[in-house]
Amino acid sequence: MQPRQYTDLDPSPRILLGPGPSMASPRVLRALGTPLVGHLDPQFLALMDEVQKLLRYVFQTENELTIPISGTGSAGMEASLCNFIEKGDRVLVAINGYFGERLYQMAGLYGAQVDRLEKPWGQVFDPVEIEAVLKDKKYKLVALVHAETSTGALQPGIPEIAAVAHKHGALLVLDTVTSLGGLPVEIDAWGVDVAYSGTQKCLSAPPGLAPLTVSPRARQALRSRQTPVANWYLDLTQLDRYWGQERTYHHTAPISMNYALREALRLVAEEGLQARFARHRANAELLWDGLEALDLSLLVPAQNRLPTLTTPRVPPGVDELAVRRRLLNDFNIEIAGGFGPLKGQIWRIGLMGFSSRGENVLLLLAALGQILSKPA
Amino acid sequence: MQPRQYTDLDPSPRILLGPGPSMASPRVLRALGTPLVGHLDPQFLALMDEVQKLLRYVFQTENELTIPISGTGSAGMEASLCNFIEKGDRVLVAINGYFGERLYQMAGLYGAQVDRLEKPWGQVFDPVEIEAVLKDKKYKLVALVHAETSTGALQPGIPEIAAVAHKHGALLVLDTVTSLGGLPVEIDAWGVDVAYSGTQKCLSAPPGLAPLTVSPRARQALRSRQTPVANWYLDLTQLDRYWGQERTYHHTAPISMNYALREALRLVAEEGLQARFARHRANAELLWDGLEALDLSLLVPAQNRLPTLTTPRVPPGVDELAVRRRLLNDFNIEIAGGFGPLKGQIWRIGLMGFSSRGENVLLLLAALGQILSKPA
Repeated sequence: MQPRQYTDLDPSPRILLGPGPSMASPRVLRALGTPLVGHLDPQFLALMDEVQKLLRYVFQTENELTIPISGTGSAGMEASLCNFIEKGDRVLVAINGYFGERLYQMAGLYGAQVDRLEKPWGQVFDPVEIEAVLKDKKYKLVALVHAETSTGALQPGIPEIAAVAHKHGALLVLDTVTSLGGLPVEIDAWGVDVAYSGTQKCLSAPPGLAPLTVSPRARQALRSRQTPVANWYLDLTQLDRYWGQERTYHHTAPISMNYALREALRLVAEEGLQARFARHRANAELLWDGLEALDLSLLVPAQNRLPTLTTPRVPPGVDELAVRRRLLNDFNIEIAGGFGPLKGQIWRIGLMGFSSRGENVLLLLAALGQILSKPA
Repeated sequence: MQPRQYTDLDPSPRILLGPGPSMASPRVLRALGTPLVGHLDPQFLALMDEVQKLLRYVFQTENELTIPISGTGSAGMEASLCNFIEKGDRVLVAINGYFGERLYQMAGLYGAQVDRLEKPWGQVFDPVEIEAVLKDKKYKLVALVHAETSTGALQPGIPEIAAVAHKHGALLVLDTVTSLGGLPVEIDAWGVDVAYSGTQKCLSAPPGLAPLTVSPRARQALRSRQTPVANWYLDLTQLDRYWGQERTYHHTAPISMNYALREALRLVAEEGLQARFARHRANAELLWDGLEALDLSLLVPAQNRLPTLTTPRVPPGVDELAVRRRLLNDFNIEIAGGFGPLKGQIWRIGLMGFSSRGENVLLLLAALGQILSKPA
């Protein structure tokens, strides 16, 4: 081992305008670097309570079981499925992008009989289409994505979808990874039963935790299971006792990441949800106008477009990867490309949390304009 | 929401001498607070390679599949089992403390036929005892704990146990949560097939990642599975492609935690493994001598005693919780109590990583001496 080969950590000052991670506020970075306390320290237990209260605020819910899962958004997705599925349960997944596909894969892994309701990537579902399937068979869960990170599409009509799910005896599981903290996510008003997110998108904390909330109805379903949850680390029956008043040891909570999440949520509370949503919307519109001025068309029609993730089409004859390389190497700006059926066809531009700033939009547009007008 | 009720993060300056988390070096805390780059940024991909190389150094292995799992030590434990168990496989777990018990629970969750080999908490196994069981039945896995965090016992004879496991066609899974980075853990020389650890013990990074290493033999067993791994987030067939040269997207790696782990591992490499082990040993001996001078006897005999976690018996008539409260409230020192069959009977004193310092030992002994001589 030659330790000298490992130089001081000194990454380039990236401007993160991809689908996540977004940039973290200096306040969040300082919170991260705060000296540790023990995970059973009364001061950390108090912080755990604060994180839960702040998460309820941002999820707009009174759900008691509202916690950060100690893993990334994908762990949140898995927790949202494995705790509510027993072998043979029927699950309906609405798929219009990569993360719907992943919900389908995960649900199958836990022994569910999973049906697919599909749309081309970038389109959204009408609640009527979902009800049509629910009338046919009895499902335990309906799972879908609120904000599809692979396409930039915003699924409308969540309250209507929740209502039809409940009418037919199913629970609604909602992926809010790219919406929570950037646009309205009203868990209680909409009637969502289980929702999960990630910290590295519109909350602007680093990746590593997955906010999760569970309605009383879903919590009852969890308690009524006939078989144990088939996943130890993500078992909500145990996590409920660890984060609740019993404090039964389960795992060691990631102390520093919870410091950061608390600070990020405090920033959300200080800004206020409505002001935060308006900021995300205004910066998105500035971006959309600027992209149109560059003759770039957008994949998703305006009415279903996410304010947090915009997906312009790559013009014919343009090498999308070369454009992204120049953005990164010449200007330190990160955006992402498409993948799956949209590979090579779109860019994915995130304006989330601390990254959603007018100056970032203007800079990106200027850089894109320069690169597209002068191909290498 | 009244954001003003959430004050600035300002925890007390704790001296962490419990079973983890240990204290993090200021260098690790600064690395944590470094601005983020994207998880697909070439700079982060290079960092992922460095983390893997540094983990191989500390595990003393050439195992290609050596990565940090994006969860805490418990996720590392679950990954070490779920990837190698298929329904009906026989697993032998040697249990002499809480974490052996947990291995048993987790293995059962994945459909293994699990047998228990038990010793009272605080004792250790003779390789001969393990071989006696292996002669009886054919096992796929033998799992045990190298350094039992619930008791302070160090399991000797790992090379012999690995040899008998291999002789009888089983893979050896080893919990190195409280040993890795603090005492010798020689994965290749000992013939361990799967080992996992946590970042918050002797590596002195914050909790949130679980170093894991898989031998070629175990990797072959993974590739030869007849059924998919029954856990999405911890599926090593996918994680192998994400951390390997294919870089196939699986989840978003926790950027900041990997910054911190890299810096913590760099500190290990700069100190050198042998010097680091000697420091842990010397500070442990200083503590043991001091505890004996206070008339405190130790649960574990000297030859099986962990240098990283010491477990003095609570003297008759002493309220162990009251002592810990005074240590914390009067002197900002955290130690832990016992639990399970050892509840109320021992304290658990960790000297791990950055916390393993002469000044911490002297201070703790002075504080304990004062508290025990003047009960409240």
